[in-house]
Amino acid sequence: MPVGIIGAGGYTGLELIKILLSHPYFTLRYLGNTEGEMKVSELYPALRGVLDMEICASQASDVANVCDLVFLALPHKSAMEFAKELLALGVRVIDLSADYRLELNHYESNYCAHSDKENLSHAIYGLVEYQENLIAKASLVANPGCYPTATLLALLPFVKYIEGSVFVDAKSGVSGAGKKLSQTTHYCRINENMFAYSPLEHRHQIEIEEKVKHFANKQLQVNFIPHLCPFTRGMLVSVYARVQGDFDPLRVLRDAYKNASFIRVLESASEVKNVTGTNFCDLFAKRRGNDLFISSAIDNLLRGASSQAVCNANLMYSLPLECGIPKVAYVP
Amino acid sequence: MPVGIIGAGGYTGLELIKILLSHPYFTLRYLGNTEGEMKVSELYPALRGVLDMEICASQASDVANVCDLVFLALPHKSAMEFAKELLALGVRVIDLSADYRLELNHYESNYCAHSDKENLSHAIYGLVEYQENLIAKASLVANPGCYPTATLLALLPFVKYIEGSVFVDAKSGVSGAGKKLSQTTHYCRINENMFAYSPLEHRHQIEIEEKVKHFANKQLQVNFIPHLCPFTRGMLVSVYARVQGDFDPLRVLRDAYKNASFIRVLESASEVKNVTGTNFCDLFAKRRGNDLFISSAIDNLLRGASSQAVCNANLMYSLPLECGIPKVAYVP
Amino acid sequence: MPVGIIGAGGYTGLELIKILLSHPYFTLRYLGNTEGEMKVSELYPALRGVLDMEICASQASDVANVCDLVFLALPHKSAMEFAKELLALGVRVIDLSADYRLELNHYESNYCAHSDKENLSHAIYGLVEYQENLIAKASLVANPGCYPTATLLALLPFVKYIEGSVFVDAKSGVSGAGKKLSQTTHYCRINENMFAYSPLEHRHQIEIEEKVKHFANKQLQVNFIPHLCPFTRGMLVSVYARVQGDFDPLRVLRDAYKNASFIRVLESASEVKNVTGTNFCDLFAKRRGNDLFISSAIDNLLRGASSQAVCNANLMYSLPLECGIPKVAYVP
Amino acid sequence: MPVGIIGAGGYTGLELIKILLSHPYFTLRYLGNTEGEMKVSELYPALRGVLDMEICASQASDVANVCDLVFLALPHKSAMEFAKELLALGVRVIDLSADYRLELNHYESNYCAHSDKENLSHAIYGLVEYQENLIAKASLVANPGCYPTATLLALLPFVKYIEGSVFVDAKSGVSGAGKKLSQTTHYCRINENMFAYSPLEHRHQIEIEEKVKHFANKQLQVNFIPHLCPFTRGMLVSVYARVQGDFDPLRVLRDAYKNASFIRVLESASEVKNVTGTNFCDLFAKRRGNDLFISSAIDNLLRGASSQAVCNANLMYSLPLECGIPKVAYVP
Repeated sequence: MPVGIIGAGGYTGLELIKILLSHPYFTLRYLGNTEGEMKVSELYPALRGVLDMEICASQASDVANVCDLVFLALPHKSAMEFAKELLALGVRVIDLSADYRLELNHYESNYCAHSDKENLSHAIYGLVEYQENLIAKASLVANPGCYPTATLLALLPFVKYIEGSVFVDAKSGVSGAGKKLSQTTHYCRINENMFAYSPLEHRHQIEIEEKVKHFANKQLQVNFIPHLCPFTRGMLVSVYARVQGDFDPLRVLRDAYKNASFIRVLESASEVKNVTGTNFCDLFAKRRGNDLFISSAIDNLLRGASSQAVCNANLMYSLPLECGIPKVAYVP
Repeated sequence: MPVGIIGAGGYTGLELIKILLSHPYFTLRYLGNTEGEMKVSELYPALRGVLDMEICASQASDVANVCDLVFLALPHKSAMEFAKELLALGVRVIDLSADYRLELNHYESNYCAHSDKENLSHAIYGLVEYQENLIAKASLVANPGCYPTATLLALLPFVKYIEGSVFVDAKSGVSGAGKKLSQTTHYCRINENMFAYSPLEHRHQIEIEEKVKHFANKQLQVNFIPHLCPFTRGMLVSVYARVQGDFDPLRVLRDAYKNASFIRVLESASEVKNVTGTNFCDLFAKRRGNDLFISSAIDNLLRGASSQAVCNANLMYSLPLECGIPKVAYVP
Repeated sequence: MPVGIIGAGGYTGLELIKILLSHPYFTLRYLGNTEGEMKVSELYPALRGVLDMEICASQASDVANVCDLVFLALPHKSAMEFAKELLALGVRVIDLSADYRLELNHYESNYCAHSDKENLSHAIYGLVEYQENLIAKASLVANPGCYPTATLLALLPFVKYIEGSVFVDAKSGVSGAGKKLSQTTHYCRINENMFAYSPLEHRHQIEIEEKVKHFANKQLQVNFIPHLCPFTRGMLVSVYARVQGDFDPLRVLRDAYKNASFIRVLESASEVKNVTGTNFCDLFAKRRGNDLFISSAIDNLLRGASSQAVCNANLMYSLPLECGIPKVAYVP
Repeated sequence: MPVGIIGAGGYTGLELIKILLSHPYFTLRYLGNTEGEMKVSELYPALRGVLDMEICASQASDVANVCDLVFLALPHKSAMEFAKELLALGVRVIDLSADYRLELNHYESNYCAHSDKENLSHAIYGLVEYQENLIAKASLVANPGCYPTATLLALLPFVKYIEGSVFVDAKSGVSGAGKKLSQTTHYCRINENMFAYSPLEHRHQIEIEEKVKHFANKQLQVNFIPHLCPFTRGMLVSVYARVQGDFDPLRVLRDAYKNASFIRVLESASEVKNVTGTNFCDLFAKRRGNDLFISSAIDNLLRGASSQAVCNANLMYSLPLECGIPKVAYVP
């Protein structure tokens, strides 16, 4: 099945290329970015001798001519403009930006005016463990954010036990801040350092709260505090909640995910490095009386973006979820 | 004033040496460790051309002959055996181990049987902002742990507002695990990695809870989850609590520490690198409704150990708290 | 074809497992180590849900019953004892240790007495670009060391132009020092640090000199200075030589490796991160008058050990060199 | 003695501030940068509670009114414009840029047209171990570059023994690339990576060659290959040369620097971390026949810039070289 990537120049674009290179069913036919035409191996010297494709200035009609499905790895706002065109041309779309993740009012109060309300109304949120059937029939999938993915997979099984609000202490690698240059991604700033940013007001907070309401039917205040950390990829999320009821937290996780091939319930706390390079989400939970700690680790660029996107593509084409999805970590 | 260090071979011993080298009042007269005699510059090549002292096999009577005050940077258990001897010989002691920090029952249920109950009964917990007067008169100061220091300084001003329990998500540099070799301090294990360890059962949890009771007169469940992080020194502690009452959290911090020369209340979240190399504790706090986030950064080896120990020594000898204490960070 | 790994507990053992997991022709049938029996996923939590095999206490006869080919990822000395037994049982062996790499006198003066001289006499040095035909017929392949691989691939095309001796400044990631605990692999020692070790007397110096003599028929003094560097995997080797003759160094490299699918000749200096996770060796060279700089980058655990070993296996079974060998780097 | 810093906003400006804060003789009276007025603690949050000075838009006349000596930490070209004005106003100047380091023809062919030839003709190159007397009388000192400092201190004692050309393999921390944003200083690019840049054509190559000629009176081709490395501060330089004559290289170093308080001759290879935070240069040398390896480690921001600048200031005011200069490393 011929597929394309628009936004090949960022980290998630690169990860999509890497996965699709060896996918047994999807064939990469189109690479587009907005910074002009070049060989993919000029942009990514690591791909010399591996992939020799041209990156094109992205034109929706060109893509539509050769692709059945397109992954959009663009910044929000550009994404919805492109998606609208592609969908009108009959192409299925998996959007990795925030543009189709939220209800209209949440989107507009946290991002900007929405220019494609019609498609927004039928977009499917691609959290694969919770939406398998809807994804299978979707023409437009909104791929979840990295923080919401790691948090929701940890939190959703426990929502019914939770009293009051929740705190999420999230630790992200620097690649989560993207390839763009900024003071916080300068090596000398973040090396040997760590700090919270946008505490209690990051835009993923509303995404998490909206999806908890959607999937668990409960209005929950999720206080979200992300931290920038001195490693390139990976993400560790620690969830803190007060709970009621008599339950074994590991059993809750095992029951919730007994059929989930990309979720591993551990006997000890999750480690970033065991999931880096894979689509796995490693979960652990432990109680002290009525207080609950849940630990969740993912690769922010894979399970938090590109490999989850290809999982969504697998479901859209009735392929096994695991088809072509990376499972072997980068360790050591 | 002649002082000594027993346990010169560990990281906190080294930091003590570095501070005392340029202290205007204390003079280093004795260096002891338990691994045999050698020049300090053989043990620490970084000190060649700076300090040429002998490290001796530690004998309490030798130390007592030449020192008025001794810093003990030994593992727990060895520390109390040595402290007991020194105190009997009339030497004042600042102990950096856990041996004199806790009430007897807490100590014995978390560490081991206590062999110096008498001195334990009058030891002073050296959290300098909260005990200035008692420290001044003490012959034995129990220097607080790194995690408790960062946590208590953040938490204590808010205890009266807190409802229910508290979560503390602590992130420590690898030097916190000591110089001893272990799988978790191998470069390839912790580099590009992060994980929680001993969640909800670390021994500093009881130290924090006991001291909250002591200083704020309230029984508070403090759920403590430490994480090992890929940087050498520094510590970031995020405290999460539900609160009641109408207060501005930054004002609470500013009021609590208006006379504290080593506490800085910030307008944005604390950063590890701004305190590395110093005795500062950088604090920040923010509310979302009745939910409170407090951020605290210290250098784990200095404010969390050696520079706080010298602050205690300053108070014991009626010197200004800031005398000889490092304030200039290692940035960039 | 059923294959086994003895020494599954080290980094090169892990990398072998990772490659063989998805190799289209070889099937992993036996995992042995010397530290007792356990599930591979207990030893490597990253492999939970991926591979569930038992690791056995290694018995040559057991391995020989089920495997046609065995990879030995053991320390030198243990390796030759095991290899001898396996070869006697008719199993083909690829040895990743130093035991079969050197001529007897070089081996014994740099390592220890050799206990398997007979097999040593017919072992083939597995530098794949230079020995394709001999490897195809070998029953015992000595897989080259990481430093010699990166150095020889850079150096061999230029040997005929070189006057006098050569300097090799090699920079290795910490995984090159192995999983064993030591002061130099403690995170706090090597993080934010770099230093040369065993300068001019590392055991790979003789391996390089012997192989230059073997492949280029010239006695060349190769002064080898390895450096330990603060990254986990990868290796960068800079070669410095005085040359005579009128040649374009990039053309020399392109000519030498025009048919080499795992060597990339670059227009600018080699970068570690472009080869990490792959079997590629990235080469660059530049002259200033008669002085020559050559730059070579490999993944020390893959091209410097495990993926080169599987390349050797491919040749031994008449498979294409690239069959099942990783080409997609871990970037970003 | 009142002194000023122009260019307070870069890394070397910050290091100058940190040193001058506790210098017993120089008092910081003026901080200027080119990006507008602000408190120094706004620019450097690490300095809150430590230094509360204003940074001014730099005006030569304002500086001259209050300062006897000025440190210029500006980019080349801006530096000479400012220096010219200051010198005309009778202020002594230590320039940390390249503007007064080279002979006119070398400067203009490697940088740009020179706009202050008059002062250039009497500027003194501030390599303190080699120019003590001239520096003492200078009104304008050109502070050496970081690479030339580390290289010349290693190389100069051996020049008379060297045959033919020399190779210098230099490894620099990322702070050497400055605070400015660029793709190569993005954390995700340089973390877990290493590469040579500008090999054989970096502008410090000519500085080294010119100074070898100047100090050792010999035309020597010094082939210079710098590498960017994944650590923030520090620099390791490995020099490779062919030599003749019968000498013990450690003795050569010890003889050359027997009176040099900031040079330490080691028994084993230099380590970056032993000098980070100090003005020390750690040297080691070893022969293999007629081939020589010299290892040199400095803190690129201190000995390679700011602390060497203050050493120069000490000499200019007849103070002891060591006055106020940092000697205690940042280890661990």
